[in-house]
Formats: sequence, C-alpha cells, structure tokens
Amino acid sequence: MDAAALRGVATRSTVSSVTKQPGLLRGASAAGFAKVPSSSKARGGGAVRASLFSPKPAASKEARPSKVQELYVYEINERDRESPAYLRLSAKQTENALGDLVPFTNKLYNGSLDKRLGITAGICLLIQHVPERNGDRYEAIYSCYFGDYGHLTVQGPYLTYEESYLAVTGGSGVFEGAYGQVKLHQIVFPFKIFYTFYLKGIPDLPKDLLCTPVPPSPTVEPTPAAKAAEPHACLNNFTN
Amino acid sequence: MDAAALRGVATRSTVSSVTKQPGLLRGASAAGFAKVPSSSKARGGGAVRASLFSPKPAASKEARPSKVQELYVYEINERDRESPAYLRLSAKQTENALGDLVPFTNKLYNGSLDKRLGITAGICLLIQHVPERNGDRYEAIYSCYFGDYGHLTVQGPYLTYEESYLAVTGGSGVFEGAYGQVKLHQIVFPFKIFYTFYLKGIPDLPKDLLCTPVPPSPTVEPTPAAKAAEPHACLNNFTN
Amino acid sequence: MDAAALRGVATRSTVSSVTKQPGLLRGASAAGFAKVPSSSKARGGGAVRASLFSPKPAASKEARPSKVQELYVYEINERDRESPAYLRLSAKQTENALGDLVPFTNKLYNGSLDKRLGITAGICLLIQHVPERNGDRYEAIYSCYFGDYGHLTVQGPYLTYEESYLAVTGGSGVFEGAYGQVKLHQIVFPFKIFYTFYLKGIPDLPKDLLCTPVPPSPTVEPTPAAKAAEPHACLNNFTN
Repeated sequence: MDAAALRGVATRSTVSSVTKQPGLLRGASAAGFAKVPSSSKARGGGAVRASLFSPKPAASKEARPSKVQELYVYEINERDRESPAYLRLSAKQTENALGDLVPFTNKLYNGSLDKRLGITAGICLLIQHVPERNGDRYEAIYSCYFGDYGHLTVQGPYLTYEESYLAVTGGSGVFEGAYGQVKLHQIVFPFKIFYTFYLKGIPDLPKDLLCTPVPPSPTVEPTPAAKAAEPHACLNNFTN
Repeated sequence: MDAAALRGVATRSTVSSVTKQPGLLRGASAAGFAKVPSSSKARGGGAVRASLFSPKPAASKEARPSKVQELYVYEINERDRESPAYLRLSAKQTENALGDLVPFTNKLYNGSLDKRLGITAGICLLIQHVPERNGDRYEAIYSCYFGDYGHLTVQGPYLTYEESYLAVTGGSGVFEGAYGQVKLHQIVFPFKIFYTFYLKGIPDLPKDLLCTPVPPSPTVEPTPAAKAAEPHACLNNFTN
Repeated sequence: MDAAALRGVATRSTVSSVTKQPGLLRGASAAGFAKVPSSSKARGGGAVRASLFSPKPAASKEARPSKVQELYVYEINERDRESPAYLRLSAKQTENALGDLVPFTNKLYNGSLDKRLGITAGICLLIQHVPERNGDRYEAIYSCYFGDYGHLTVQGPYLTYEESYLAVTGGSGVFEGAYGQVKLHQIVFPFKIFYTFYLKGIPDLPKDLLCTPVPPSPTVEPTPAAKAAEPHACLNNFTN
C-alpha cells in the first residue's frame, strides 16, 4: 500500500530552504525564527512547479462515511525524548496551578504493541489542581502521528485520576476529514496511556493500523522489535 | 436521561493510577510529569478488561444531521478560580504584546442563568495590542464543559473590543461530531461573555441544555441556586 | 457580495465594554485580564436585544458539500509585526528544544499575490530539534483570517526542512463547517510559505478568494498595491 500516494505527495524531494541556526532569539529582536543564510534563497524554484501540478486528494464521490471505526493505540513515554517539559509558569510555585504549561511528545504503538506507529506532539494546559483526587485537570491539545498515513488532531480533558473523552477535530492523509471522539484510558500516569479512537468521516482504515489490542495493564510493554522499530515492526516512515 | 450512557462510559470506577506529587520538575529533569509511587503500578489491570468490552458509541444509521441548533451559554468569571493566569512572556513588559499567554478557566451557566453547566478551559494567545480600539486581539483555543453531556472545542478570534465568531472544531458525548460556529458576545470584559452556538452534526440537544436566554447586559447574574450549584440548578456531575 | 451578511452579523455596532489597561497582572493577583472602569459597565444592554434577534446562519438544505475546493494563499513575514515571539522556555538554553513556544502572526496574501487577505495567528510548539536535517519539528495550531469572510483553523506538523500536511479543523463565515487538509510548502524559512488548502464541507468559495497562483519561489513578492492594502488590492475589512 502506497501511503504517500494517499496524501498526494508526489515530490518528496521538493525540499525548500531549511537552514536553521539556534540562538537566543526572542521577541522583537527575532524578525524570524532564525537567520536564513543567503545561499538558501536560491533554491527551490524549479521543484515547486512540479509540486503545483502534483496529484491532488481525490474528491469523494459518495457521501462522507459516518460509520464508526475503532483504532487502538498506546502512548508510551520511554523517557528518551526529554518529555514532558513541565513549565512551571503559574504564580504558585509550590503546587500545580493554572498557568503551568506542559508541552510533550511521546511514542505511539499500535494496540497489540507489536508495531511502532509514530509519536504524539502537543501541549497540556494545567487547568486545576484537584487535591481531593490527588491529581490534576489538564486541557490537552495535540496530534497523533502515524508516519506516511498522516495524523489525527485531538482536544479535550486529560484528567490524571480517571479516564476521559477528547474530541477528534481533524486529520491528514488517511485521516483526512476524521471526526468523532477518543477515549483516553490512563494506565500509569504519565507513562502509559491506552486510546480507543471512535473515528467517523474516513474510508476504511488500512490493515496496517488494525489489530486486536492487548488489554491495558501497568505491565504492558511493546515488543522488543517494535521498540527497536525494526522494519517489520513499524509503519513506513514511522514518525519519530 | 442517562447522559453517561451516551458516552459509552460503563465503568466509571475504572480509575487508574493517579498519584501526583507537585515539584519543580522541568525540562530534561522531568522524565514524567511527576514521580509515580511504585505501589500504583500494581493497580488497574482487572478493571481494564471490563472497559475494553464496555458499550461503544453507536454508529449513526442516518446521515450526519446538518440542521442548525442554537445553544446559549454564559461564561462568567466569579474571581474564585485564580483565572486567568496572565503570563507576561513577551519582550515588551509595559504593554500587552505577542508572546503573552493567558491560560484561563471560568464558569459556564445556561442562557437563562438558572443552571450551572460546567466550565471553560483553555488558552488565549495575545496576538496584537490594538491601541486605536483600546483593546487586544487574542487567538483563543479552548473547550466548554457540560458535565456528563461532554464538551465542545472551539478556536478563533477573541477581540476585547467587539464580538467575534469562533469555529466549533469538535466535541464529545452528546456533542460528538459537532461542527459549526459560535458567536462570542462580550458584555463586561473579561468577566461576562454570552455565547450563541450554531451547532450542526449532532442529534437533538437534550432538553436540559435548551432555554430562553436572558438578554445579555452588564447587570445579569446567575440565580443564587445556580451559583450554589444546588441539585435542581445544575447539570448532573456538572464540570467544576 | 455582502460577506458580513454571510455571518449573520446584523449589528456591527453592538460593541461592548472594551477598556483595557496593560499591567503586570499575573496569576492569582489578576482576577481579570485587566481592570474594567466602572463607567463601562453601564453600556451595552440596549444593543444586545437587537443582537438576540439578528439573522441567523441558514440551515443548509442539501447535504454538506464534500467536493474538494482548492484555495491558494501565501503567508509572508514582512518583519513589521514583531513576530514570531520565540519564547525560549525549555531547560536547554543553547539549542531549540521541547518547551520552547513560538506565538506568531504573519500576513496573508492570495495565491496570485495581488490581494491582501488578512493574517495568520497562533502558536508553534517546538517538539524536536532535528540536527540531521538541520531543522526542527513544530506542532502548529493557528488560524488564517480572511477579513469579513471569516477564518479557517488548522493544526498539525510544521517541519522547517520539508513540506507537510496539516488538518483543517473548522472555520467561520464562508468557511463555517470546513474540513480537509492543507499543504504547507515552505519557500524561505520562516518568511515565505505557500499553502494549498483542500477544503470540503463548504459552499462554493467567493470569487474574491479564487486565483491562479504564482508558482512559489524564493523571489516572489506581493504587488506593491497588495502590500499597501489599497482598496482594489485587499479584501473588505481585511484582517490586520
């Protein structure tokens, strides 16, 4: 299955200027994210024309599918991505409070834990410390990435003390036009989360993404092959 | 009306590990949000199996509803939630500027101001100070929570000097699959806002959420019963 | 074409209290964003009633359109908006890292670069520095504003070293109910980006927004009339 074709990505080589210099740029002094060496300005013109005439996403001839498709994934923090970055920005420095921001990125595996899919990427906004539940309410805004298959965007509650439902707000690639909701089932805060997506609005999911999930428990682990992202145990161009 | 059933939440007791310790965790030193006591790792396995086989959201048999349903709500800041947290992070320290971030959470009442519904939760990004209007343009990304009925996600402009329209990007529970837009009518910046949601994509709203709105004015107040969230004046398990 | 009518905005004069004072408000000390002078509390009541009975968005009689419409726009940073604000909040101070936040707002032109449309507004979350590509992965959450025509909301990957697809999560005005995806083609990081929106769910785009795009290249520039936002070279009430 050629997932790239699903996205109308004909010219993966259409790479444009990319040079990036880290620096302590900030505020008004940063006209751009960082300086672009002048040499890079000469690239890209030719490739772009091809991109303009590249294959486009096909118009769906039938109505948008409204059947529910379940997609199971595990989000696992293997402590190797320097995630999360807990930004303690609230006025309260002694406990979690509104104002704290938590950008994060973890690894995504399929529900049977034998295939690496990609990553999550986004932010949790601390909304409320909930002492009587010994936890916190976050507002979570993030994406789940599935390599060449594209991504899903979600937004909603992340409660450290019980499961919750987030909205699926859209997607790209095979997830283009996705809507519905997703159940977030926390297993080991904040290292292991099991998700059940209830997806509508998209064609049948590729077989690559279907599986019988391993029932979530604190001891579940991806297979060594999936952890190592061996070719037979990961998606094509899995997001990393 | 059993709102919980609408979300397929069969096992509210399926609570997983929740222990949370506040601390000055940050960046690379914070492998997780916070440490998880080892005792918590032993929990959860049994309950999870039930969750896997719990009722699922029903597939809609007919096409997705495209009629418009209006939903009226008031967002009120009663100054008891330590909200908003104005994070003055821009390089300019003397006036509002791009870079300032404003996480917030306020209370939500129904349009007739006699029922507590839940809360708002999200963030305003300061985009532009607009001196000629004596105000600011924010990009707002947040959710509106309605207890067991679920939540709506919205994104768009918040202008402190005039009304605006935001996009409804999705929802959960009875709002699963919602789309459309919402008019934000500011009454008293930033304490009282009246919203008119124009919702599509969802079944008929529960009667609990329908009402004849009180016309917005600076003097409107929730009823004392709603403010106190007395049982007859709040949603089931209203979000708080 | 009366774009305002498309949004059901009958009473542009329904402006509510707007006074805003900058200040170093933060956390618990900021009960509101800023103080509201008591005089402003007396305004607004009369106009509101009109708003309550203003025209509403019409229910679509036919099914939601699922054909794909392409919309071409250029996002250009002319270095006159103090954007982006690179907030170096990660623990690593010497290179880009998770925790860095980048609120931004740039100018939007149509694909033929002869019309000013509005602005972008939102945030990029730095997810990962990618040294082997000499660039970075961001999670981007923002809106594109088109004056009286409304706005589109998008979320997804922004890679400084190659093109990407983001999800279209919703919209307002003529974009109410929009879904689909958008291709982000970077030309000169981070100053010139060419977008191809593949929009579904909306009526035919207004002619004002249609054009034959100028092929993206590092040397493209908006026409002087568009840069100056002369009346014939900008949208009605273009967002600025």
